[in-house]
Amino acid sequence: FLLFVGDETNMLDAKTATGVAYWRPEICLGQLRFSSDAVDLGLPDLTYAEAVQKGVKTLMIGIANEGGYIPTAWLASLKAALEAGLHIASGLHGRLNDIPELKALAEAKGLTLTDVRHSGTDVPVGTGKARTGKRLLTVGTDCAVGKMYATLALEKAMKARGMKADFRATGQTGIFITGEGVPIDAVISDFVSGAAEHVAPANSPDHWDLIEGQGSLFHPSYAGVTLGLVHGAQADMLVLCHKANQQHIDQHEEYAIPPLGEAIRRYEEAAQLTNKNAKVIGFSINTSKMTEEAAMAYLAEIEEKYSMPACDPVRTGVEPLVDYIQKHS
Amino acid sequence: FLLFVGDETNMLDAKTATGVAYWRPEICLGQLRFSSDAVDLGLPDLTYAEAVQKGVKTLMIGIANEGGYIPTAWLASLKAALEAGLHIASGLHGRLNDIPELKALAEAKGLTLTDVRHSGTDVPVGTGKARTGKRLLTVGTDCAVGKMYATLALEKAMKARGMKADFRATGQTGIFITGEGVPIDAVISDFVSGAAEHVAPANSPDHWDLIEGQGSLFHPSYAGVTLGLVHGAQADMLVLCHKANQQHIDQHEEYAIPPLGEAIRRYEEAAQLTNKNAKVIGFSINTSKMTEEAAMAYLAEIEEKYSMPACDPVRTGVEPLVDYIQKHS
Repeated sequence: FLLFVGDETNMLDAKTATGVAYWRPEICLGQLRFSSDAVDLGLPDLTYAEAVQKGVKTLMIGIANEGGYIPTAWLASLKAALEAGLHIASGLHGRLNDIPELKALAEAKGLTLTDVRHSGTDVPVGTGKARTGKRLLTVGTDCAVGKMYATLALEKAMKARGMKADFRATGQTGIFITGEGVPIDAVISDFVSGAAEHVAPANSPDHWDLIEGQGSLFHPSYAGVTLGLVHGAQADMLVLCHKANQQHIDQHEEYAIPPLGEAIRRYEEAAQLTNKNAKVIGFSINTSKMTEEAAMAYLAEIEEKYSMPACDPVRTGVEPLVDYIQKHS
Repeated sequence: FLLFVGDETNMLDAKTATGVAYWRPEICLGQLRFSSDAVDLGLPDLTYAEAVQKGVKTLMIGIANEGGYIPTAWLASLKAALEAGLHIASGLHGRLNDIPELKALAEAKGLTLTDVRHSGTDVPVGTGKARTGKRLLTVGTDCAVGKMYATLALEKAMKARGMKADFRATGQTGIFITGEGVPIDAVISDFVSGAAEHVAPANSPDHWDLIEGQGSLFHPSYAGVTLGLVHGAQADMLVLCHKANQQHIDQHEEYAIPPLGEAIRRYEEAAQLTNKNAKVIGFSINTSKMTEEAAMAYLAEIEEKYSMPACDPVRTGVEPLVDYIQKHS
């Protein structure tokens, strides 16, 4: 894959590219940026010609902008990718296949345009019926606070201990990384909890589905997606993800991030509609903006205040969370 | 219109037909039922030939089944409608236009297949930004407890008093009745609150948008739709709709209807994310299964317990709610 960053300068909006580059470095050969102002994934900058020469087969659009549209400014570059002989894959709401120029060119060249955010799967309405197997869902005080990262880190650590655990992707980045899942925010709203039931179906009693969370109950645009996912997941355990020192919802200054205790109460209340035993069991905190000392003090403070493990998956790993999960499995 | 009931025997699933027949009797010339076991709308049973003779132009599919699919058992009858020269309109998720046999026949006959639950409108992501104008949203302890009916009754009563008020349709039946609106449960989940903002946009400070509610926060399948609608509506006032003596969510015995006080607390908490002043101001109760005496006693009991007006729009009208709205406008 060549990861398309284009003109994106916002690290949060490039989270698909950064996520795939981090979790599947072996499949990422380079990045395509319009200029050096764009987000740098730490991969070699390649032209389309160079990418083809290095063996790249597909251009992956690594941007997750608000609304998920395909900016017109990208069109010339995407056409150049097809001209160079690259397939294109995208996780945006806007479909590559809906752009006649791209579609015609891809067909002429015998190349594919893949829109992963458009599930071909027919999803049923949620049933709310209890099912076997254990499930853990990551939830957040905001979008883009590290839910997918935490979930993948838990999968890795649990598998290393020989536990039965599978990451269940619910967003474009997770689907790019694992090759399967349901893009929950692209499902028709009536079917969101059904899609969550579908992505993490009944399983053996000692098996953990680790479900990637989406959005936040405290986000004015996306809380409905989050609630449907929480209900369909029927999670036994929730891990609350949070970015240290974040004061308000990203790009929404008038929406304050709630205190962690309030977030725990609201998520447990929501989750207990479909699983009476649902419980927040710990925190995954992004402390990347803090010094080591401040970060460790903050994590210790939260652990003491809420009597639950608090990790930063990048800084400390997630072993204390896995200890808890294993002890209570 | 000829209202298609088909083989539907469940009154709740025929709520589109019953709603349109009640609120727009002048446009409903008859009903089409496969047998007398099907729901009776109180309209003349007509064959397609009789309907055409009476001046019917369009067959309206008046069924809202779970999942919103078009049963195969209807196909022969729908084809017969086209053969007789009728257009067909549907508010189901499943599209008439996706059934090749119907599409080909309609094209051959020069007739239209209208799928109202598929909004052609491009809806943006919700912004959560405060907007002018007053808004009221109906919310419910379950689906199908009379939210649309209550909202239409409020519009009628407020207009009769000369207040500026508009019903805003968010479901297929409301859209059939008013000819506009956004089918909120058919919107891609990421855009639900945006669709609610779109359907009830900024208005003059003395104007009331009366927004038809959908689903219920307590329904395991549809609560996400409800929450997105609540957030996008930014309602100043909420009216809680409830069916007297209902013990559990329809078709979900393991999901209890919460106490009204709990429902008030949860809806206010949800609505206050986007409108700090949001408040439940009264009740719309369906007491159709009670005697007059029991119903009036129940309404009085609720009024006293919660210090808010409690009406049954059918039995008592909604004047006490309108008194409150007018006093606090």
